[in-house]
Amino acid sequence: MSPPLLIKNGTVVNEDSMFKADVLVSNGIIQEISSSIIALPEMEVIDATDRFVIPGGIDPHTHMQMPYMGEVTKDDFLKGTEAAVAGGTTMIIDFCCPDHRNGESLTDGYKKWRGWADPKVCCDYSLSVAITMWRPETAEQMAIITSPEYGVNSFKFYMAYEGTLMVHDDELYRGMQECAKLRALARVHAENGKVIKEREIDLLKQGVTGPEGHTQSRPEEIEAEATNRACVLASQANCPLYVVHVMTRGAAAAIAHHRAQGAIVFGEPIAAGLALDGSHYYDDDWLHAARYVMSPPLSRDPTTPELLMKLLAAGELHLTGTDNCTYDCRQKSLGKGNFTKIPNGINGVEDRMSVVWEKGVHSGIIDPMRYVSITSATAAKIFNIYPKKGRIAVGSDADIVVFNPNAYRTISKNTHHHNLDFNIFEGIKCHGVAEITISRGRIVWANGKLQTVPGSGKFVPLSINSPFVFASHEKREEKKKPKIVERLE
Amino acid sequence: MSPPLLIKNGTVVNEDSMFKADVLVSNGIIQEISSSIIALPEMEVIDATDRFVIPGGIDPHTHMQMPYMGEVTKDDFLKGTEAAVAGGTTMIIDFCCPDHRNGESLTDGYKKWRGWADPKVCCDYSLSVAITMWRPETAEQMAIITSPEYGVNSFKFYMAYEGTLMVHDDELYRGMQECAKLRALARVHAENGKVIKEREIDLLKQGVTGPEGHTQSRPEEIEAEATNRACVLASQANCPLYVVHVMTRGAAAAIAHHRAQGAIVFGEPIAAGLALDGSHYYDDDWLHAARYVMSPPLSRDPTTPELLMKLLAAGELHLTGTDNCTYDCRQKSLGKGNFTKIPNGINGVEDRMSVVWEKGVHSGIIDPMRYVSITSATAAKIFNIYPKKGRIAVGSDADIVVFNPNAYRTISKNTHHHNLDFNIFEGIKCHGVAEITISRGRIVWANGKLQTVPGSGKFVPLSINSPFVFASHEKREEKKKPKIVERLE
Amino acid sequence: MSPPLLIKNGTVVNEDSMFKADVLVSNGIIQEISSSIIALPEMEVIDATDRFVIPGGIDPHTHMQMPYMGEVTKDDFLKGTEAAVAGGTTMIIDFCCPDHRNGESLTDGYKKWRGWADPKVCCDYSLSVAITMWRPETAEQMAIITSPEYGVNSFKFYMAYEGTLMVHDDELYRGMQECAKLRALARVHAENGKVIKEREIDLLKQGVTGPEGHTQSRPEEIEAEATNRACVLASQANCPLYVVHVMTRGAAAAIAHHRAQGAIVFGEPIAAGLALDGSHYYDDDWLHAARYVMSPPLSRDPTTPELLMKLLAAGELHLTGTDNCTYDCRQKSLGKGNFTKIPNGINGVEDRMSVVWEKGVHSGIIDPMRYVSITSATAAKIFNIYPKKGRIAVGSDADIVVFNPNAYRTISKNTHHHNLDFNIFEGIKCHGVAEITISRGRIVWANGKLQTVPGSGKFVPLSINSPFVFASHEKREEKKKPKIVERLE
Amino acid sequence: MSPPLLIKNGTVVNEDSMFKADVLVSNGIIQEISSSIIALPEMEVIDATDRFVIPGGIDPHTHMQMPYMGEVTKDDFLKGTEAAVAGGTTMIIDFCCPDHRNGESLTDGYKKWRGWADPKVCCDYSLSVAITMWRPETAEQMAIITSPEYGVNSFKFYMAYEGTLMVHDDELYRGMQECAKLRALARVHAENGKVIKEREIDLLKQGVTGPEGHTQSRPEEIEAEATNRACVLASQANCPLYVVHVMTRGAAAAIAHHRAQGAIVFGEPIAAGLALDGSHYYDDDWLHAARYVMSPPLSRDPTTPELLMKLLAAGELHLTGTDNCTYDCRQKSLGKGNFTKIPNGINGVEDRMSVVWEKGVHSGIIDPMRYVSITSATAAKIFNIYPKKGRIAVGSDADIVVFNPNAYRTISKNTHHHNLDFNIFEGIKCHGVAEITISRGRIVWANGKLQTVPGSGKFVPLSINSPFVFASHEKREEKKKPKIVERLE
Repeated sequence: MSPPLLIKNGTVVNEDSMFKADVLVSNGIIQEISSSIIALPEMEVIDATDRFVIPGGIDPHTHMQMPYMGEVTKDDFLKGTEAAVAGGTTMIIDFCCPDHRNGESLTDGYKKWRGWADPKVCCDYSLSVAITMWRPETAEQMAIITSPEYGVNSFKFYMAYEGTLMVHDDELYRGMQECAKLRALARVHAENGKVIKEREIDLLKQGVTGPEGHTQSRPEEIEAEATNRACVLASQANCPLYVVHVMTRGAAAAIAHHRAQGAIVFGEPIAAGLALDGSHYYDDDWLHAARYVMSPPLSRDPTTPELLMKLLAAGELHLTGTDNCTYDCRQKSLGKGNFTKIPNGINGVEDRMSVVWEKGVHSGIIDPMRYVSITSATAAKIFNIYPKKGRIAVGSDADIVVFNPNAYRTISKNTHHHNLDFNIFEGIKCHGVAEITISRGRIVWANGKLQTVPGSGKFVPLSINSPFVFASHEKREEKKKPKIVERLE
Repeated sequence: MSPPLLIKNGTVVNEDSMFKADVLVSNGIIQEISSSIIALPEMEVIDATDRFVIPGGIDPHTHMQMPYMGEVTKDDFLKGTEAAVAGGTTMIIDFCCPDHRNGESLTDGYKKWRGWADPKVCCDYSLSVAITMWRPETAEQMAIITSPEYGVNSFKFYMAYEGTLMVHDDELYRGMQECAKLRALARVHAENGKVIKEREIDLLKQGVTGPEGHTQSRPEEIEAEATNRACVLASQANCPLYVVHVMTRGAAAAIAHHRAQGAIVFGEPIAAGLALDGSHYYDDDWLHAARYVMSPPLSRDPTTPELLMKLLAAGELHLTGTDNCTYDCRQKSLGKGNFTKIPNGINGVEDRMSVVWEKGVHSGIIDPMRYVSITSATAAKIFNIYPKKGRIAVGSDADIVVFNPNAYRTISKNTHHHNLDFNIFEGIKCHGVAEITISRGRIVWANGKLQTVPGSGKFVPLSINSPFVFASHEKREEKKKPKIVERLE
Repeated sequence: MSPPLLIKNGTVVNEDSMFKADVLVSNGIIQEISSSIIALPEMEVIDATDRFVIPGGIDPHTHMQMPYMGEVTKDDFLKGTEAAVAGGTTMIIDFCCPDHRNGESLTDGYKKWRGWADPKVCCDYSLSVAITMWRPETAEQMAIITSPEYGVNSFKFYMAYEGTLMVHDDELYRGMQECAKLRALARVHAENGKVIKEREIDLLKQGVTGPEGHTQSRPEEIEAEATNRACVLASQANCPLYVVHVMTRGAAAAIAHHRAQGAIVFGEPIAAGLALDGSHYYDDDWLHAARYVMSPPLSRDPTTPELLMKLLAAGELHLTGTDNCTYDCRQKSLGKGNFTKIPNGINGVEDRMSVVWEKGVHSGIIDPMRYVSITSATAAKIFNIYPKKGRIAVGSDADIVVFNPNAYRTISKNTHHHNLDFNIFEGIKCHGVAEITISRGRIVWANGKLQTVPGSGKFVPLSINSPFVFASHEKREEKKKPKIVERLE
Repeated sequence: MSPPLLIKNGTVVNEDSMFKADVLVSNGIIQEISSSIIALPEMEVIDATDRFVIPGGIDPHTHMQMPYMGEVTKDDFLKGTEAAVAGGTTMIIDFCCPDHRNGESLTDGYKKWRGWADPKVCCDYSLSVAITMWRPETAEQMAIITSPEYGVNSFKFYMAYEGTLMVHDDELYRGMQECAKLRALARVHAENGKVIKEREIDLLKQGVTGPEGHTQSRPEEIEAEATNRACVLASQANCPLYVVHVMTRGAAAAIAHHRAQGAIVFGEPIAAGLALDGSHYYDDDWLHAARYVMSPPLSRDPTTPELLMKLLAAGELHLTGTDNCTYDCRQKSLGKGNFTKIPNGINGVEDRMSVVWEKGVHSGIIDPMRYVSITSATAAKIFNIYPKKGRIAVGSDADIVVFNPNAYRTISKNTHHHNLDFNIFEGIKCHGVAEITISRGRIVWANGKLQTVPGSGKFVPLSINSPFVFASHEKREEKKKPKIVERLE
């Protein structure tokens, strides 16, 4: 049992307010928040003078230890969560991808993932389940896995990766209808997979084999198109929608457009997209270029990263993830001579909190409260664990970060905690450093050192019917009922 | 041989100017235009005082005598072209739909259509060919049919009607690439066929069987989505695009959006969409409602017709068609008890010229020059027959209408020339009446009487590489070339 | 001293969460919130089963007892605040309009208003001060009145009412710069006053003298134009902006546009605009039409009310006010024969909470949390009194409403509490009824009866530099610094 | 009298078509266009093989010999029109700016300008008259000057340059109403002059004295704001509008927005804005930076030039001008130490035709027909001289350019024909060269040599009520009539 922690003299920041206060933690829970708490001998006291005391980050989008096309991502649930806490993130929502296409049931896939994660995680985690094909049994399995026994309340659909992960529009529409019925969230990877496939074939034929082919096979419009399509289908299915990795202006515009029509849609840009652009794909060094290969690719428009942050400020985008999905140099090199074979994925779980602070708060686009909103609170609300997570409040889980807005650090593969031999943010200087990370009341990161214990994190079951997402759902369903004209025929 | 015609004292209207002038016609060609031409004894003189002398209408979108799902549209090439000239339209571009899905070649389909049309047409016509599936031999057949021997320079792709006409995104993309290569125009029917199919199933299950189900199965967003998708694919394929029957605000907005990005896209609203809205689908009378069933359906937003006209004025939409595709009451009744069985289609070829005048010019949204642009000149340019057609100019075909802007007529099935027992515009009063219609120098409509001769119209072969569409194509292709990074790997 | 109140079995709704809990109040403050609180004998117990327990409404936009052009609005601070609490609103922010144009100092005006309000108010209130001309001494007076002694943190600028209230663009720009410097909020009434004046002259000349002239003198574009202009000026002045009474699609679009560019702008639709449209101005009954005269006028587009609610849902608009500014039938009749003489203003402070529930929550567009956000929490944040106001939290002021979402009431002048002989919402049936209203821990409305005490409300001083508005201001100022090129000249 | 000219073997390009043909010119008029014209001995034959034969350029926006603030622009009507024809432009529309503010009548100003121009012009010209204040006599003077005797059919209003040229919104609105009444065109310089003035004061105070202050005093939003405002006022006044020098994305978006609502608005980007961006203002060399000072300034967004060209392609912008207004280095240097004193203006009349070809046609954004549209035909239509000007047609003025699309030239002050010691396009390589320029049937430029005669150009009177602008005006006025509700009061 860890000793009670008393965090003194800091400025507590929640999404709705910020104020100077002391925070007392014990038994993994925040016990008291008040202007002055007396330190007792048994308490470990943390001096947070000139620091912000913020909810630990929640990364809603990671792929730890994910098998795909014969390779497994390098960050397993141990290294991945260590990287997370070192950066100020205390919870991840990872994607479980059952091989449903080949008949694996959703629960079987789920159990496999739990088996991989539970013994290793150093902070809390939950799972979101991918539906890669619509099968006769899919609806029933979705119902089962959203029961409290499994604790899954979201599903992901890929509109790209034809032949492995992609679903067609009718499958997606059926999946969304089922989500709506279950009050589970539908999440989409939005790209037009069929057109990408044709473009890949053409480009290879035309002799474009390097990483620059990756971005040319997936022009920005391809993402915007699919994002718009996903929004339309969700609206037809009366299903709230969560668009993962919003990378471009056009995709963001599609989301804003449909929200203004009354749709419930959430947009998630990721750390990479908020800090980097697609010029890397044209780098002279093949390996350098290959490291940035992910889908949808980084935007070719250098003004995109700031634009995405402005949309987070304006409320047209809503929370930040990472799509942390790490392949090392050896794995990236499998795509030499054929860019379509370069494993897709980048790092982010460790650096997101600093990158978002630097590009958002330090640059004056957002304030610290909005920062909390887009790094933890909104995720907690969407996934129905708020205010247990995502808020510094009495009774909440003591997932806390002591954050120094004035310190800075320079990101490097030499100092990061990923199991990865490069870092896409290499050399970027970020103001805003997580000095101390507390997970369920235990310090797991301090003084630049990890104090993690494998398996000490917990699986957090997620309940369906999150009020933040579904509180108006019943009324909306009434309005969507089909209209029948009574006629004497 | 008809006598020379001298049209005196009218105001000639072309898309770029209007001026008082006499017009002399002989041998089917406009011979002279000048401020005063002396009438010779052998001339037939038409007094056009207070009238506009305009190019005969070109309807770029008809389905005469079309077989579909066991029925054939009621207007054959005789009745259909009689209706056309009675309304001031002197050329139609009809759709030839080979049964390509079942292996019929494009040229075989073409020959069948020519066989139906040639003996019957009372005015000129051309053909546009539908590609309903991408087969190994399709590209080659497209090349053949675009040769001068066949005279086809456009292809149509359906994104709806899954299982019969619909192509998937990869097929559409390949088709567009082929069009671009051939310098032929790609035309699309833009709706998301997969989602429509699912919605139809659901609605029928929920007991919605009447025509109101038709509109509910095809919400406006479904059209807007597909229109946007078509534009994106065309842009990727570097292919000019023509969107047939733009029915809604969202579809029009998609076109405008892509045009502003530099895409070459043309939008065609139709007479029905410029005059009517979708309230008819909820009519108490089943048959009344069924008569308006077409796809995409009439807009549910009553402000749409005027909006579409404003976009024609602004240059964001470009020409008007009709989708004339007439099924009579008996045929419509086949869908009793199941709206998905109601044959899709409405009339329009006769009334377009009056409807567009009434809603456009008479209401002050467009001027007579723009009227000519959207009823004939732009069609002639797109299909590469300008200024032979679509212009009152020396040397042009004498397809001319003497148009009275001050007269009006009330549309009715009792007076129309369709082979149809209703008229969707029944009771609409239109200013702007085609008093005399001249086809290739012969009066075919005057004093409210047809003077047509079956087979007197000609098939007009259309050449590829229309300058209006493709004059910048070569330069654009250069810019789209893939980029290759030279690397020492 | 009122007895402690225990609200049992209700569902507490805050802007970020909703949960079943009991709430204990004493000494005007919320003392405890927990799942079950034991009732003690001295407590007055309120049964809130099946009710929502929500923060009392904050109406950020009222004109009680306002003198303008020789008349005074009928609701004084007594009747106005009684109406407020009867409808579930426990705080108003009223506009103090010093006669600055004629040299009255801001503080003198302020004192006059305090003198009118303090003895009468039945709930808490604050003041926002109008700047109607830019004078040499204005900046200094703004600084004084924003000191804690006066407690004003916002200023209002009129872009309409030329000759009485209107400021020109240079004045507005200077005013905004001063606001930014003081960290006070700039609020604007956005209409193009100069064009309105010309249109009024023209319309009267053309014989349009009735209330329909009001709406014709102020077409929707006039509001959209000024809203856009205000946003541009604010952006130039680096000044956060609050647009009062957003009435139209165009004005809302302007706000959304500038927010997406990174601007800090808040949009306030009002109860009238969320429930009514401008067809009333054409009513056959002069007096009926005159009652709806306010500026900007109600939208002529019947789809606007729902649109505005959807934008509140989407976060493109932010909070709801009323512009409560009541003139009775006698006063309205002063404009007989000349619509420009009809006093501008409508009621709303009593009915806002029900109207917003009906049109927002009951119709499925927003959920109860967003309802709290737009009726109290966001106002509290903007005006820097959160979470003292706008939240059900321990330590917050006990301004609480027990709200029954299933009850309904029909609005009528016969039952309302305004000092007004009509009600613009007459006959509208609203779900969502404030059954009990508690102001600073005292029940002021229950069982359909007022229990108010004149002067029992307090003036709430508002501090500058609200974090919700200004937390990123310093960083933003750095970015706006002028750039100087060093040159050897 | 010049000999007949026969232009052989070229490709005639008009805005609606392009075709190989010979063109015969005599007596200043195009006499014949046909596929082959036999050369007679008296004809001068021009071989146009591989050349385009296009209408001479019309530059609708120049300031030759303009006095402003004590200086006069360097290009007088001789040098200015020599530069024009050397670049392929055969007509200019210059701005006449009477000192109306100080009481000078419009006709007096007009006569002054005619006196300057008539003896000097080497090609045709017309005048557009600026209204710099609304005076009691202004309306009457506008009526007089639009009579055939004077031949003015457009007026210009400045929304910037407060204190010298600027009109306020009420003046602008009155001016537009008067234009509409007269069927004359309203043209606006759209910037918010009041805000600019305040910003200038602030910047100078903050020590920003160099040309970089010019762009900082006039941020892009300032132009977009005023453009939107002008469109709104024009719409209220039911007046067609022509926005001169559209420099930015926002201004163009405003125009497109209002056009889509049905407004008649034309947008004129200029050569400078289609080729250059605002980075020049930050150049280390003061004089370099100062040369680019014009208002509105060149866009700070490097993607703007291409964007503007795309909008010309899409029909959202309509014609190209130059705002040729040349001050030499000495004059520019008057602003040393105070950027507000740098005379505003740049060159363009000579280089427009090449620059637009290079950036438009050579880059694949527009085709040659659209090129003709935006360099001459649309200007001719708007100013009511089409098809006399702006078209290669029998009976049209023989203002013709033999244009070589394959040749290129590099723009330089060393070779240009301006009376100017620099050229803002210095060093830009342009494909598309005017090899021969013919003005009213006389060769004025060939083989790189001028063959001009001062005073040989003619003043072209412009008639009001251009059909291209006003043909739907009467119908529109009917719709705008005020509505009066008949009431029994």
